[in-house]
Amino acid sequence: MRLIQYMGVSLLASSLLFGASDLMEKATKAGLKPIPNEKEALQKLIDPKGMITPERVELGKKLYFEPRLSKSGLISCNTCHNLGMGGVDGVSAAVGHKWRANPHHLNSPTVYNAVFFDKQFWDGRSPDLENQAQGPMQAAPEMAAQPSLVEARVKAMPTYVEAFKKAYGKEVKVDFKTITQTIGLFERTLVTPSRFDAFLQEDENALTDEEKEGLKLFIDMGCTSCHTGIALGGGMRPFPVAQPYKYANVGDFKGDKNGMVKTPTLRNITQTAPYFHNGAIWSLKEAVQEMGRTQLGKEISDKDAEKIVTFFHALDGKKPDVAYPQLPTATESMPKPDMN
Amino acid sequence: MRLIQYMGVSLLASSLLFGASDLMEKATKAGLKPIPNEKEALQKLIDPKGMITPERVELGKKLYFEPRLSKSGLISCNTCHNLGMGGVDGVSAAVGHKWRANPHHLNSPTVYNAVFFDKQFWDGRSPDLENQAQGPMQAAPEMAAQPSLVEARVKAMPTYVEAFKKAYGKEVKVDFKTITQTIGLFERTLVTPSRFDAFLQEDENALTDEEKEGLKLFIDMGCTSCHTGIALGGGMRPFPVAQPYKYANVGDFKGDKNGMVKTPTLRNITQTAPYFHNGAIWSLKEAVQEMGRTQLGKEISDKDAEKIVTFFHALDGKKPDVAYPQLPTATESMPKPDMN
Repeated sequence: MRLIQYMGVSLLASSLLFGASDLMEKATKAGLKPIPNEKEALQKLIDPKGMITPERVELGKKLYFEPRLSKSGLISCNTCHNLGMGGVDGVSAAVGHKWRANPHHLNSPTVYNAVFFDKQFWDGRSPDLENQAQGPMQAAPEMAAQPSLVEARVKAMPTYVEAFKKAYGKEVKVDFKTITQTIGLFERTLVTPSRFDAFLQEDENALTDEEKEGLKLFIDMGCTSCHTGIALGGGMRPFPVAQPYKYANVGDFKGDKNGMVKTPTLRNITQTAPYFHNGAIWSLKEAVQEMGRTQLGKEISDKDAEKIVTFFHALDGKKPDVAYPQLPTATESMPKPDMN
Repeated sequence: MRLIQYMGVSLLASSLLFGASDLMEKATKAGLKPIPNEKEALQKLIDPKGMITPERVELGKKLYFEPRLSKSGLISCNTCHNLGMGGVDGVSAAVGHKWRANPHHLNSPTVYNAVFFDKQFWDGRSPDLENQAQGPMQAAPEMAAQPSLVEARVKAMPTYVEAFKKAYGKEVKVDFKTITQTIGLFERTLVTPSRFDAFLQEDENALTDEEKEGLKLFIDMGCTSCHTGIALGGGMRPFPVAQPYKYANVGDFKGDKNGMVKTPTLRNITQTAPYFHNGAIWSLKEAVQEMGRTQLGKEISDKDAEKIVTFFHALDGKKPDVAYPQLPTATESMPKPDMN
């Protein structure tokens, strides 16, 4: 009994000794970075080329919610990257045109904070959000729309054409590239500062003691070798490393040509189940443990996994306010919806 | 030449002689009514039972945008009744679960101003919006969710349960009836005042001369025998009356057991193509002319149909501002999406 008490005191003491500022330093050393809370610094980071303007973002938002960019007229970017659901669809494999699931059984990654990723798509084949937006729009099991169709639809809505002129000047070419670029510019604004950012920015009390403990464990375990940077992820990494992934048989995704897979962000991770590239794991705790096995070759105990999950709640971010847009009215010349 | 000039002057004179106040009176006699602009009168009209509270409307809005109320987790009320697209989906026949089109090839009617309809659904089988909301949620080719599934999903999101308690009191039963009722209460608020309302409320200049001419023609032709009341529609009427409907072969809908069909509202009609119960006509002018033939036994000239369409633009209403909702996070116990 005495011994147990003594151990309790000792543990408490050690956790007090290892204070918040040590933890901040530890986190920073592990490569974890906050979303800048200074407006200009953030702007520079999300818009290095200085392309963002309020007109373009507003137009990009409309296009993001625009189902008529899909062949059927029913699927928008927001269908799979739902801004009200952590930027995802909450299903294992994305479902699109004709109710087809993603042929590789790939899970829709979140659009929130995707601006901080090194690359886009699970295999990192796209360098940025503007380029990424071109993919799902054309993919047969997603929005299934040829660029010419997307252009014809948008051009058949005079309000859009006017908005493009306002956003880019009268000489603008309302083409597939400009349309997808504008969506990308809107997506760049979708960042979600969290209590974790406040903590990294010197607010010691932004995290609870339990969250701090989870963060420490997260770093000590080695999770930050992949889940690092502002996004706590977003870079290309080998997967799996130590042991085969338990649900490798779900879908046929093997990563890029070097077997590298994009590390998902951990921001808002409590809101973006199911997990892994093939959405095979619904429990965040199980996901942490599976990551321990596949990537670190470690059995993470239930207790430790729970602590790490507790920390993850500090990554739930404040979403930007989005007024649901009123979309333009089509002229009769607009190419009709096509369900086939 | 003189004669033509004389006729021109005469027409102009007669349109001036028949002034705005005469037209207002004529419209009122034809049963056309404005959306009240006095807040209390409007409230009484849309909420005769005094059920609406801000908490219920906010919760109802979340549920309206909630795809997890569908079996797949992908289809929300807003999928077919898109608040950014005049309250419709813009396709001929609604498409839902497993990409199935409505088996009767029925077109999704607008949710805007539906509170002013006498009955809900094309065959008027539902008395109100609360009751209506129960239909599509369960229908196999729409959201395809059994009441028990809807309840289990909602209950697996603690934030919803809390919101129901806040909205109805701690003893609330979070069941299918309360869930759909809450959606109905939100829908009651979706009214869109227009320039036409301002005109009926004595603002003579709210309509252009061309719109006034279209309105006069609209009444004189007899359109108001069905398109009347606040919604300019929403009542059950025989269809077709004078001649067979040109696209009667699209789908098998024959109306209710007495052959009555709900008259669609004309509010926001410029935004809700395609037209008719089976969405077979994409041109508003053609729709007007087809109505003339089927219901009034009249050939409406191109010119007259265009004038009536010009008036319809005055029915485009101001949509309520809707902040896109952040939906609750699910617990792991939530029943999984099911695509089959």
